[in-house]
Amino acid sequence: MRPESGRSRPVITLLTDFGGADHFVGVMKGVIAGICPQALVIDLSHDVPPGQLLAGALILRFAYEYFPTGTIHVVVVDPGVGSDRDIVACRSSNHIFLAPDNGILWPALEDAGPLESVWVEESTFFLPEVSSTFHGRDIFASVAAHLATGIKLRQLGPPTKELKKLHLPCPRIDTDGAIQGNIIYVDHFGNLISNIPAGMLDELKASSGKLGITLAGVHIEGLSHSYTEVASGKLLALVGSAGFLEIAARDGSAQHITGIAPGKPVTVVVG
Amino acid sequence: MRPESGRSRPVITLLTDFGGADHFVGVMKGVIAGICPQALVIDLSHDVPPGQLLAGALILRFAYEYFPTGTIHVVVVDPGVGSDRDIVACRSSNHIFLAPDNGILWPALEDAGPLESVWVEESTFFLPEVSSTFHGRDIFASVAAHLATGIKLRQLGPPTKELKKLHLPCPRIDTDGAIQGNIIYVDHFGNLISNIPAGMLDELKASSGKLGITLAGVHIEGLSHSYTEVASGKLLALVGSAGFLEIAARDGSAQHITGIAPGKPVTVVVG
Amino acid sequence: MRPESGRSRPVITLLTDFGGADHFVGVMKGVIAGICPQALVIDLSHDVPPGQLLAGALILRFAYEYFPTGTIHVVVVDPGVGSDRDIVACRSSNHIFLAPDNGILWPALEDAGPLESVWVEESTFFLPEVSSTFHGRDIFASVAAHLATGIKLRQLGPPTKELKKLHLPCPRIDTDGAIQGNIIYVDHFGNLISNIPAGMLDELKASSGKLGITLAGVHIEGLSHSYTEVASGKLLALVGSAGFLEIAARDGSAQHITGIAPGKPVTVVVG
Repeated sequence: MRPESGRSRPVITLLTDFGGADHFVGVMKGVIAGICPQALVIDLSHDVPPGQLLAGALILRFAYEYFPTGTIHVVVVDPGVGSDRDIVACRSSNHIFLAPDNGILWPALEDAGPLESVWVEESTFFLPEVSSTFHGRDIFASVAAHLATGIKLRQLGPPTKELKKLHLPCPRIDTDGAIQGNIIYVDHFGNLISNIPAGMLDELKASSGKLGITLAGVHIEGLSHSYTEVASGKLLALVGSAGFLEIAARDGSAQHITGIAPGKPVTVVVG
Repeated sequence: MRPESGRSRPVITLLTDFGGADHFVGVMKGVIAGICPQALVIDLSHDVPPGQLLAGALILRFAYEYFPTGTIHVVVVDPGVGSDRDIVACRSSNHIFLAPDNGILWPALEDAGPLESVWVEESTFFLPEVSSTFHGRDIFASVAAHLATGIKLRQLGPPTKELKKLHLPCPRIDTDGAIQGNIIYVDHFGNLISNIPAGMLDELKASSGKLGITLAGVHIEGLSHSYTEVASGKLLALVGSAGFLEIAARDGSAQHITGIAPGKPVTVVVG
Repeated sequence: MRPESGRSRPVITLLTDFGGADHFVGVMKGVIAGICPQALVIDLSHDVPPGQLLAGALILRFAYEYFPTGTIHVVVVDPGVGSDRDIVACRSSNHIFLAPDNGILWPALEDAGPLESVWVEESTFFLPEVSSTFHGRDIFASVAAHLATGIKLRQLGPPTKELKKLHLPCPRIDTDGAIQGNIIYVDHFGNLISNIPAGMLDELKASSGKLGITLAGVHIEGLSHSYTEVASGKLLALVGSAGFLEIAARDGSAQHITGIAPGKPVTVVVG
């Protein structure tokens, strides 16, 4: 055990839409290993559907805060690669984020609080040859590895003006007090994650007592605490591990039961 | 090279039904990195079909002994998450295992021999907030990382009484001496792995000479030594790398050829 | 940060057709961790279609040069496992390669230049028991880890004679000067990668000015520089990140649009 040296080990997370079948992710790690071999590289996901910024933004939002202080989060969902879109590097109190300036960082940045941010322009920190189609390799991996060796954000380029923002659809409160929200993410288990935060549910419950949830023609009475409070195969609603209202099915897939298509907006009414 | 310090590096394996598309696995690694950054985390599989204890149990059974002494094997296939099911940590002579007390460890534990085991109850080693749906993050990753830093099993909680057991279906010997077994696992290549251990085949062969294998209406004459002993596309039987009778097809999938559905019990008769 | 010790950290890449669902890849990493715990193991891909040497060869060819000097590239796409096929270990100026002698290394080796190569025969560096179906575990992982600890190639076995070669289909130039090539790889995004290197396009362009690309009954006028130079959903041609002519679709899949089946040879005519 070498806790002292161990604790200073830089952590880099990778979140892309590259899939796992090709060489793309491995090559990014090869570039990092050449520049900062002591970095610990952790895959967040490489299965963001191609170009889907919202899905990528949510995975980052759900995950980032569980990583150690100083972690460098690299996000490459980048349909604009090779165009004149900018690349941005940001530092909040505890985390560093590196991504195309397409809004994908925004839900995490909003949550993380005040920021320093720069345009990534200094090609000293890129690979010597930069392709027009694989900046994950030629820019993002290389810059992330240099950040892991300890270079400062300001060495990458000038402070940013306004960053592009990707706003999650915002739940709203009806005149009768009901919350109108949306399903914004469907996970591997078919759990349907809404944009309704736990705090909103607490307020409604405080004022009206018991809650009922309606989506896709289905009504669920009350909030459960865990998946095991209903019979096998039955739907339930609870506050999921990311702090949002979630519709699940015990030992099954809420997505299959409700027939909700991935990515299709679905209204959730809590009242 | 720093073999001395290197050799003491703790190893943690992760085996879950979380899939790779969401943030679940990455977040577990983030939690571990925050507590024990020097740990080497190795994915065993995250593609156990949701809630399928037998598949998870077999992957662990096939894999665990190839890891270094002291490896901490974390298994999170946990349909009872959030209920009052217990969590168990066990130490055999060479390995540590951490899982819900649902029997998933049993095939490996039976193989590993005498054990010390405790209920995991001491919340000092959990994340400060424990959700009711993601113990992989809030309990398992955190406890595994603390074990990797060197805490003792007994610090986690009191010794267990009886653990839940998941028994593999046991092959039996007919009155005519034939072995009746089952297909218990189908791998990526469509190889059909049975519960008939090599030793049982040796005994039968010693008493009756040549062997024949029958499953799903197909008969295979004799045991092969390697996949390449039959013509391309043909079925064969051999002792697979985990030490059990396996039905395979050279350059093809025995599952496709025999039409055996994954998970469906199939009788294998060797006589 | 410990750049000095960090820089000597050995890197091993793994490229297989094992998939990610079973224990195969995890077990290889377990074997490596037991022999050379300080090694950094990086997955190149485990989703090579079973036994498809060309796909594996191309992933290695596209990837290897982005890894640090001294990286050990382990390739286990091995339909001949258990037969009398040989295993080969090669060292070019900057990289070490370990694979069955089935030609899968050849496109990378041709690119890497002059080589030292040996037959891998010395069983001291294998696991004590070698199965006939899982040399990834019993030979490749073990030998790679020993190489990572610093043993010399010549300790593994005698110098090779001729290695098996897998030649990529070679583009040819028609009497009218047009280039006739083939689609040799389709990536996760549905980009169609040809065997026509950038240099060949440059020469043709120098002699004839503007280029046009024809494949599967579709004609594309001119080479683009990036994916964003055409309208969303439209096809384009460019030099991809591996240095070959590539047919892509902005925000879409060129494979879906052209209906090209994966692995099916398709002629690309540039003229």
